[in-house]
Amino acid sequence: MKKHIYIFSPSSAVRDKAVIRRGVKRLKALGHEVELDEAVFASHMRFAGDDETRLAAIHRAAASGADVAMITRGGYGLTRILPGIRYPAVAKAIERGTRFVGLSDFTAFQNAVLAKTDAVTWSGPALGEDFGVEGEPDEIMQACFEDLLSGQGEGTGWQLPASERRDPLLQVKQATLWGGNLSVLASMVGTPWLPQVTGGILFLEDVHEHPYRIERMLTQLLNAGVLGRQKAVLLGHFTNYKPYAHDKGFKLKTVVDRLRSQLKCPVLTGLPFGHVGTKVALPVGAKVHLAVEGRDAFVLWGHRH
Amino acid sequence: MKKHIYIFSPSSAVRDKAVIRRGVKRLKALGHEVELDEAVFASHMRFAGDDETRLAAIHRAAASGADVAMITRGGYGLTRILPGIRYPAVAKAIERGTRFVGLSDFTAFQNAVLAKTDAVTWSGPALGEDFGVEGEPDEIMQACFEDLLSGQGEGTGWQLPASERRDPLLQVKQATLWGGNLSVLASMVGTPWLPQVTGGILFLEDVHEHPYRIERMLTQLLNAGVLGRQKAVLLGHFTNYKPYAHDKGFKLKTVVDRLRSQLKCPVLTGLPFGHVGTKVALPVGAKVHLAVEGRDAFVLWGHRH
Repeated sequence: MKKHIYIFSPSSAVRDKAVIRRGVKRLKALGHEVELDEAVFASHMRFAGDDETRLAAIHRAAASGADVAMITRGGYGLTRILPGIRYPAVAKAIERGTRFVGLSDFTAFQNAVLAKTDAVTWSGPALGEDFGVEGEPDEIMQACFEDLLSGQGEGTGWQLPASERRDPLLQVKQATLWGGNLSVLASMVGTPWLPQVTGGILFLEDVHEHPYRIERMLTQLLNAGVLGRQKAVLLGHFTNYKPYAHDKGFKLKTVVDRLRSQLKCPVLTGLPFGHVGTKVALPVGAKVHLAVEGRDAFVLWGHRH
Repeated sequence: MKKHIYIFSPSSAVRDKAVIRRGVKRLKALGHEVELDEAVFASHMRFAGDDETRLAAIHRAAASGADVAMITRGGYGLTRILPGIRYPAVAKAIERGTRFVGLSDFTAFQNAVLAKTDAVTWSGPALGEDFGVEGEPDEIMQACFEDLLSGQGEGTGWQLPASERRDPLLQVKQATLWGGNLSVLASMVGTPWLPQVTGGILFLEDVHEHPYRIERMLTQLLNAGVLGRQKAVLLGHFTNYKPYAHDKGFKLKTVVDRLRSQLKCPVLTGLPFGHVGTKVALPVGAKVHLAVEGRDAFVLWGHRH
């Protein structure tokens, strides 16, 4: 089914154009129409163009009428421009059927849109990192993206570590799914762009952050009351950090164990999301059901369950 | 004048005991009585003992009756235990004359004490980093610490960069001085331990943080309304970060320039504070006067100005 995919750069500048071109070629080979925003390769210091340029790119993506508006890459730049985004225009685009998709720095956009409009965006692949890879893009990522494109997706599932097995069934119904990159989300605490979600399901991932920093950020979410208001916390992948000799046994598991000791709600790990090849697509702001049976976890947003 | 100095470890574990012993020797050579907390060398993973141990150390420091309670080192560990601190006991110790002094991770303690009790603590040296150095400790740091010990200090001053020269005189009167380490302070936004200071003077420093992270944290303080409520922002040193090829001209100055464009209040740089040898001692929570004349900046907390 041919879809119109609009590619834009709201965060860091694209440095390797070949990666983007490879990604575009792949999407075209899948039969889609791919439109590149005029500022997709813009560069202003670290950024894909200055703040006005990136805001304009977001608003062009919203006006594009595309089925999907996908970022080239994350990086840094969105928290700076949150006050300048025209949220009603974005919400209107989403209502007309445009699905915004991305991750990492894009977390700022997604959660700000949720805070301001309740509209749903998608945490999922970025063009460069996911479709621009050399060799074949990840199969699960592609399958989830196809679901996103078709609008036929009903949910996603993964296998929990044995230690997290649940018998009997754990169920959380009709909860708002939200979250994304922990660093970006923590940097929104206390601002008008952090969604005030009660009874939600919060998912988190991060990259290049040492466990002590992950703990400090989780502590902020905890002490700000954010974690205590959720019905479940789903942890994706936390990758690419360097342990220190100073750690002496302090590791990611220490952080997760502590988090569990502080929360009444379940904290599940292994969500296939983050700065990893195998990533699912997750609707930020959607009402979802979470079900865990044995080691099988499901997040469902379709209408037939 | 002989003073009683109590040394304790509320954050990361001390790994190099020789540094601490050298610092103790120096303070003793200056004629002071130095008391080491029983858990000063405790080690639990990254921490100077588990949470209970470090809380007990803080409360022993508060009960010590010492003239000064000084940390061995910063690191990480205080944000975890903020809910467990008995703030009235700390405030009572301060009222009785104990001056708590430290920096970096200690920012969490200092600002939580201010938020909960209005009591004054000191941003200043840590025993290891400042008195435990090989060779002679920094002269200005020592002079400021002597002022702190004697209680005779009336303020501190520094020279601004030429571009920040003020003619005529800039004055901010009777403003609450607060702040410290930017990463630690940003991690307190949205929590009950961030002081709600209006019309204050906020000082900030950081280490190992790339300018884009510094900007992201400042943006959080800005978007949370914290910066807009201050009468001045004083920037100390931001040290020891690695620039990236990707920066393409994005640097600390870019961040400061942008901050200035977003704030009506003055943003002054060069405050001798941070992870550097030459550091002044600053009373967090005190009412101070800020005066700038030409390139000379003064923060005054004595009673004769």
